[in-house]
Amino acid sequence: MRLSNAYIPTLKEEPAEAEVVSHKLLVRAGMIRKVTSGIYTFLPLGLRALDKIAHVVREEMNRAGCQEIFMPMVQPGDLWKETGRWEYYGKELLRLKDRHDRDYCLGPTHEEVVTSLVRGEVRSYRQLPLNLYQIQTKFRDEIRPRFGLMRCREFIMKDAYSFDRDEAGAQKSYQTMFDAYTRAFQRLGLQFRAVEADSGAIGGSVSHEFMVLAATGEDTIASCAACEFAANLEKAEVVVPTDHPVGLCEAEASEVPTPGKHTVDEVATFLGVGADRIVKTLLYVADGEVVGALVRGDRELNETKLKNLLDVQSLELAGSELVERVSQAPVGFAGPKGLQVKRLYADLELQNGTDWVTGANRAETHLVHVDLQRDAAITAYADLRDVTSGDPCPRCGGELRFPQGIEVGHVFNLGTKYSAPMQALYLDENGKEREMVMGCYGIGVSRILAAAIEQNHDASGIMFPPSIAPYEIALLCLDTKNEEVRTKAEAFYETLQEQGVDVLYDDRVERPGFKFKDADLMGLPLQVVFGGKGVARGIVEVKDRRTGEKAELPLDGLAEAFASWRDGVRAGWKVASQQ
Amino acid sequence: MRLSNAYIPTLKEEPAEAEVVSHKLLVRAGMIRKVTSGIYTFLPLGLRALDKIAHVVREEMNRAGCQEIFMPMVQPGDLWKETGRWEYYGKELLRLKDRHDRDYCLGPTHEEVVTSLVRGEVRSYRQLPLNLYQIQTKFRDEIRPRFGLMRCREFIMKDAYSFDRDEAGAQKSYQTMFDAYTRAFQRLGLQFRAVEADSGAIGGSVSHEFMVLAATGEDTIASCAACEFAANLEKAEVVVPTDHPVGLCEAEASEVPTPGKHTVDEVATFLGVGADRIVKTLLYVADGEVVGALVRGDRELNETKLKNLLDVQSLELAGSELVERVSQAPVGFAGPKGLQVKRLYADLELQNGTDWVTGANRAETHLVHVDLQRDAAITAYADLRDVTSGDPCPRCGGELRFPQGIEVGHVFNLGTKYSAPMQALYLDENGKEREMVMGCYGIGVSRILAAAIEQNHDASGIMFPPSIAPYEIALLCLDTKNEEVRTKAEAFYETLQEQGVDVLYDDRVERPGFKFKDADLMGLPLQVVFGGKGVARGIVEVKDRRTGEKAELPLDGLAEAFASWRDGVRAGWKVASQQ
Repeated sequence: MRLSNAYIPTLKEEPAEAEVVSHKLLVRAGMIRKVTSGIYTFLPLGLRALDKIAHVVREEMNRAGCQEIFMPMVQPGDLWKETGRWEYYGKELLRLKDRHDRDYCLGPTHEEVVTSLVRGEVRSYRQLPLNLYQIQTKFRDEIRPRFGLMRCREFIMKDAYSFDRDEAGAQKSYQTMFDAYTRAFQRLGLQFRAVEADSGAIGGSVSHEFMVLAATGEDTIASCAACEFAANLEKAEVVVPTDHPVGLCEAEASEVPTPGKHTVDEVATFLGVGADRIVKTLLYVADGEVVGALVRGDRELNETKLKNLLDVQSLELAGSELVERVSQAPVGFAGPKGLQVKRLYADLELQNGTDWVTGANRAETHLVHVDLQRDAAITAYADLRDVTSGDPCPRCGGELRFPQGIEVGHVFNLGTKYSAPMQALYLDENGKEREMVMGCYGIGVSRILAAAIEQNHDASGIMFPPSIAPYEIALLCLDTKNEEVRTKAEAFYETLQEQGVDVLYDDRVERPGFKFKDADLMGLPLQVVFGGKGVARGIVEVKDRRTGEKAELPLDGLAEAFASWRDGVRAGWKVASQQ
Repeated sequence: MRLSNAYIPTLKEEPAEAEVVSHKLLVRAGMIRKVTSGIYTFLPLGLRALDKIAHVVREEMNRAGCQEIFMPMVQPGDLWKETGRWEYYGKELLRLKDRHDRDYCLGPTHEEVVTSLVRGEVRSYRQLPLNLYQIQTKFRDEIRPRFGLMRCREFIMKDAYSFDRDEAGAQKSYQTMFDAYTRAFQRLGLQFRAVEADSGAIGGSVSHEFMVLAATGEDTIASCAACEFAANLEKAEVVVPTDHPVGLCEAEASEVPTPGKHTVDEVATFLGVGADRIVKTLLYVADGEVVGALVRGDRELNETKLKNLLDVQSLELAGSELVERVSQAPVGFAGPKGLQVKRLYADLELQNGTDWVTGANRAETHLVHVDLQRDAAITAYADLRDVTSGDPCPRCGGELRFPQGIEVGHVFNLGTKYSAPMQALYLDENGKEREMVMGCYGIGVSRILAAAIEQNHDASGIMFPPSIAPYEIALLCLDTKNEEVRTKAEAFYETLQEQGVDVLYDDRVERPGFKFKDADLMGLPLQVVFGGKGVARGIVEVKDRRTGEKAELPLDGLAEAFASWRDGVRAGWKVASQQ
């Protein structure tokens, strides 16, 4: 493609509203434009990158025996009512009505539609297993869309759904997809980790997330330095060493005034104790019931763990009015002793102490010398907090690290969560009706584009992995008025095109500095520069966008020299992405 | 692809609700499944055909210098308010609200979004012309979705938008797209006609529709046997020969009782006159005003012509209550004399007669000897009726024919209909701000799939043109238990795959009759049959699905013989599609 003909509106200025680097660079490199909050148009360069990603994903899905279909974006509400998700799925499910006032939604995911398809077609065990996928536009009405393609409302996803005869088959399908995902992300040239994850709103028992590693990632991974263990923070179990004294506190619980001290830090400083001697009391509304949860003052409560423990559809932190009613004190002074809740859960770690500081359920007051077994009605102790630095690996006891990641894929074993309510049944070898066992598998195609940039960029712009780059080569003709330079550049452009190589040829009448800046910004992995001085010396200059390394290649036998250099750059990417 | 692994659920029975042959065959051949009214899932075979169509369209768009982008399906209502279409576009525009109660719609077309994109980016005449296209999911909330993919609600469309400096540039862009469309439909192997069309809700001055010819088409084309003229019925002008007497009718208009005679035919028979002596009086509500329109009893009023004449946004036939109020008589007895309307238009043809039968605006009564110039207040005479058999070609006076067609493409010259209200401006060579001149160009990608089948099928199933067929070749192994047959069939399958030929290999353990039926149903253009008897004789049987012609090819040197036969079949398709 000649850049003089291409619609690639690069920008010098950063878009004001962009908060993350991928958003800034996608806009600046002329790849996307905002239509409205969380909704974007992909310009030619952005669409090409998207197509490259989709191509790799599609090939790996096909190789894994999945078959591509195309389901609609507008889905009938009736299907969602069958599974109950019409009611339980939050406002991210954009519900709408057609001209006949019938209920529809914009598909954020397609379990209902695909299960409805398969239950109408598949009747015999001979037709199973079956794995169907699509690459398609999804919509999630995010409350606060942000970060460009990282958290937008309309996005492109690959979603696959497997149907098996039994749990053993479903596990095999799960593993096949896990392997296909691993291959796909390897081919895409991304540094990633597959981590254990919570199944969330999709449901099911087992799931893994595929995380692209990036310092700017929204998700924290708990990853063992010694063994293979890796999990996202929501999921990672905490192993509690029992090295603390257990037993009754000798002193009685007594009130101390703590005027104006609301936070753990304020109270700890005021009372001269460590935050690890304080118990935080949190109040939640779980499917309508107020529930209490206790964690140590220096820990973070993990809402996913609490939600799973309670087995509820919705869990929200109680508002200040409710806190005041339940604790009979302003926010900041709730405590376990005498708290008016039916259920009060405590983190496992709190079993290891006997002399705590807690809120007193009275304004401006805390309790010291609290023994939870003596002074509070604990419903149960459970793993309720985030794993953190210093906690041992739950598998091997090794040291945990906490890299940041961006979720780009998720595989779920769904069991019969959808096939049971929707009656997706088949006849087994003995003619007996059985429920299919399902799995579902998503890849955020448009999100990968953002994640690739979050992982691979520098101050000058994007550094695209070769398999994602919209074009592999940026060919720059610096001196378009010099007949010899232009002719030689054109000839090389023709050669590359004949070889079927994706090349973006900057033939514009612009200053060299302008062209270099655009090339660095767009981040095509290979730069080939035809300049007046170089051509006079019989060479072209090449640059590896990732490493910044430059080299000179001879014009005589350029095609061969270039091919060999290109292999080197690709090999470098492969090594870098596997670190 | 091995059919034993493929998810292609063919059906013996016709789907009960399918009214047209393409719908029946798409479902029976396992290509689509209904999700809900007017919304379908494309199964693997259907999606492959769709991708083939999109591939040809994409190549021709790129060749024409268009650049592919990808705009969102969910569009902000604010943009539609800028052009006024939020108000004027009917209920086919599915309007919805997000969680913040903001207005959105599902895009039935993208003029607003693309104009908003370009006005934010293009500032200089140097950046023009620009032509952007996408292949994307559209939604139109049809009041009565039907005919499968022919009139569904969610569908796939290619839409392109051109931006030019001036009208001359816009005309050039229009012609470029016209030529690209012609090439695309030729390559798709479809018999089609480009016809002059009305611009309708999209607006603009000039437009052409591309019609796939099919006896089952919903649209009627007026096409000259002698010259190049072709137009859709909405658009085709009527040339009125002035060979009728003109002047006052000698007799006075007088009432005759016509009890129970409501229709033109009933009145004509009852009074013993031809329907061409009767004037039909039709009442419409045009943007809220009641308007009368007169055509001869044997003619059809053309609502598009009337709407264009009135230059209104909405035009609807008046309901019976309104007719009774305006004509002071039950429906069937309205007439021009004394009709209570401010504006009354008459078809040109009515200038050529002086002695008409009309309704009397009185129950059970008609008037005879009506002279419109004497007895009625005609606002104006205009071309208000459909062209019909016997009318001369408006260009050359030749004979008109009326084939049926299916609209699959539409090109529009939009002028400044969108750029003016949305202020899509650029600076010309003299630094003066000017409005861009636009065009828009649509191709119904999923509709082409249906149209191709409407045009090409027989009692056994589909006959796909090679460029649309999901696979080019159906390879049938009839005797899977015969080791020699199976080995030879497998070997040929491998050969074809190595050549990159799309082949669907029926390796299932099924009866030959079952396999033949499925192959005919799916309509792949080339059938290659490995049977026990044939292989024993050293031959395979091949069949051209279109003509039904069979031939035997030698197993010795099969690849060469097959290649030559394949060329012949393709050539036959080319000739057939250009007839």
